[in-house]
Amino acid sequence: MSEAIQRENILATAAAYAKSPTSQAQRRVSILGATGSVGCSTLDLIGRHPNRYDVVALTANSNAELLAKQAIAHDAELAVLADPAGLDELKSALSGTSVEAAAGQEALMEAVARPADWTMAAIVGSAGLRPTLEAVRQGKSVALANKECLVSAGDIFMETVASSGTRLLPVDSEHSAGFQSIDPNASDAIEKITLTASGGPFRTWTREQIKTATPEDALNHPTWSMGDKLTIDSATLMNKGLELIEAFFLFPVEPDQLGVVVHPQSIVHCLVEYSDGSVLAQLSSPDMRTPIAYSLAWPERMWAPTERLDLAKIGSLDFEAPDNDRFPAPRMAIEALKANNGSTTVLNAANEIAVDAFLNRRIGLPSICTLVADTLEAVARDGLTKPKTLDDVLALDALSRTLARSLLPELV
Amino acid sequence: MSEAIQRENILATAAAYAKSPTSQAQRRVSILGATGSVGCSTLDLIGRHPNRYDVVALTANSNAELLAKQAIAHDAELAVLADPAGLDELKSALSGTSVEAAAGQEALMEAVARPADWTMAAIVGSAGLRPTLEAVRQGKSVALANKECLVSAGDIFMETVASSGTRLLPVDSEHSAGFQSIDPNASDAIEKITLTASGGPFRTWTREQIKTATPEDALNHPTWSMGDKLTIDSATLMNKGLELIEAFFLFPVEPDQLGVVVHPQSIVHCLVEYSDGSVLAQLSSPDMRTPIAYSLAWPERMWAPTERLDLAKIGSLDFEAPDNDRFPAPRMAIEALKANNGSTTVLNAANEIAVDAFLNRRIGLPSICTLVADTLEAVARDGLTKPKTLDDVLALDALSRTLARSLLPELV
Repeated sequence: MSEAIQRENILATAAAYAKSPTSQAQRRVSILGATGSVGCSTLDLIGRHPNRYDVVALTANSNAELLAKQAIAHDAELAVLADPAGLDELKSALSGTSVEAAAGQEALMEAVARPADWTMAAIVGSAGLRPTLEAVRQGKSVALANKECLVSAGDIFMETVASSGTRLLPVDSEHSAGFQSIDPNASDAIEKITLTASGGPFRTWTREQIKTATPEDALNHPTWSMGDKLTIDSATLMNKGLELIEAFFLFPVEPDQLGVVVHPQSIVHCLVEYSDGSVLAQLSSPDMRTPIAYSLAWPERMWAPTERLDLAKIGSLDFEAPDNDRFPAPRMAIEALKANNGSTTVLNAANEIAVDAFLNRRIGLPSICTLVADTLEAVARDGLTKPKTLDDVLALDALSRTLARSLLPELV
Repeated sequence: MSEAIQRENILATAAAYAKSPTSQAQRRVSILGATGSVGCSTLDLIGRHPNRYDVVALTANSNAELLAKQAIAHDAELAVLADPAGLDELKSALSGTSVEAAAGQEALMEAVARPADWTMAAIVGSAGLRPTLEAVRQGKSVALANKECLVSAGDIFMETVASSGTRLLPVDSEHSAGFQSIDPNASDAIEKITLTASGGPFRTWTREQIKTATPEDALNHPTWSMGDKLTIDSATLMNKGLELIEAFFLFPVEPDQLGVVVHPQSIVHCLVEYSDGSVLAQLSSPDMRTPIAYSLAWPERMWAPTERLDLAKIGSLDFEAPDNDRFPAPRMAIEALKANNGSTTVLNAANEIAVDAFLNRRIGLPSICTLVADTLEAVARDGLTKPKTLDDVLALDALSRTLARSLLPELV
């Protein structure tokens, strides 16, 4: 099919979808982290199906200009900045509109608590912990794009999900793929869940070469365009380690049932193997709009303007076993999960310090995992106990960062 | 993972499954075509989960010895031969047991009509049409391994399925994969269903080379071990054409939404593409016990002793567009579907005559599709009307065979 014909087909299909009667009532949606990449893509999709969604609250950290534009374009009830410094700019940009403006942590939490049928939780980092938990407490469905909720506070987070009866919808491409590949009638027959990893830019480098890797080498990611932290995590495969931890909390499996396979094309995102030998998998072009659209329309599906997969054009999907010697992060994550004592919180915090040190050229790439391992050991020496509350998690996170920083000089 | 460890894991898993309490009531099952490959595999799986299944009727064409052995081993209520010639042998082999023995078409239809929760319809060829329809009329679930019901009589068959409220479970690996890859909440969002084709032994042959292909060349199939007819169909890709016709009747798509991609490793069996850009697929080692187990345990899953998929070991999954010039069969099947006038019945009948002529060295491989096309044209000249009853189908089938035979001399 020529590209022109394919585009025409896509447009015709979009028109047919737009014309079709709405198959579900209009849903009230909020987006936490609206001005980030996931937030913008979510609003793009909502804008293509305006009759299906009613925007309640949009929140951002500090980008008042974009937030105001989004709130006006989507007729939001409320726009909130986490950082109070931008409130005047936000108010000014929204003057004369019906959109309420507010700022600060308290306003953010009030925005999250406003009733919604669906909330996109896309605040990045540990700043997303409290707002996302609040969204889970009040929400009917929460699309989860924040990693820390599961990696740092998985037990507490999933307990809240269970007690509030909220439907959690993963947004990460790998976890969305896993979610889509779980046979709802046979989740007890899952033998294994395998996440795919692109392998990063050092997939074919020797151990000696990796020692010389620079931030510039690492930031040249083969398929996805991501932020710096995520790109370094992808280069060390720590990203896959963190995703294994998330997968453990999202899916009905034990740590030993989780695996990673290196797949440079990033077309297959996750594979779920069953007791009858079947493997169900989700494939797509690498475009975050697909998993976002899936979470937005769930349990139905909505049209998304992504490039359709053409396997004949791609030609070949390659797979290889991950090398635990050059890339120990996935195995470290599984060990942290098995320890079941807060190790995943430590691992995540130490990794952030280590990635920062690598980006600032203080340590080499292999030292990232060394620092994480050293920090885990140091915390364990002090007697590691499983965090029971979000405050425990934040305290352990802070302690781990302090320890990791104190261990840094030994590596440089 | 070493093979020994993998085997140990499989055995441990099997033991765990055997110990687990049965999660559903015991099901009454019948197998039509018990002594064939699908029938034997079905009984093998049933034998591994004896508490879950109660065997009602086993039927075979003429293999009295094996049928009697199976009936005794699985404590069947009834064993029936379609061919009356073997009745004495069957009775003698079953004397002193509680298994009833019978033979002939009438006895076969009575066996099919005996109430069962699940029936495996694995009688090969047009001989399977009436018994399978009868199974659909009385059954709660019918696992369909007979091609002709859908290819020759799709409309009539599916009307009976709908009016009797029977759950149809496809057994072909491609259609089982499609069935497993359909999102039950979003079947209206399917954009495309793609069946994979191994490409057969002539995938890399030129048009000129294919003209010289012998039955021996064709019978050297790369991945699946099949009967002669099926192997030739695989070499011409007519097998994929017939499967496209089946897919049309099984899945909620129009003919133009069906496609084929050549995939020599035969690991991915079917791909279902959705409006959000997601493609769901089922993969497995090429082993019929996986789709049979799926149909047997549906909607749950059961443990099957198949080789687990190891993508890192396989290394690469290759895909290429089918070549409609060298292999016109899939396109012919789509055209026959679009004609919606009985052409699929003609195509199937003419193909059987053509394959037989190729196996008997009367025509070359490319002449198989030529004969099918010529027969379609000849039938159309006489005025083709859509068959309304099974008798219409059988009459059109017979007419097509006669015409195909009469056209053969022009090709040799």
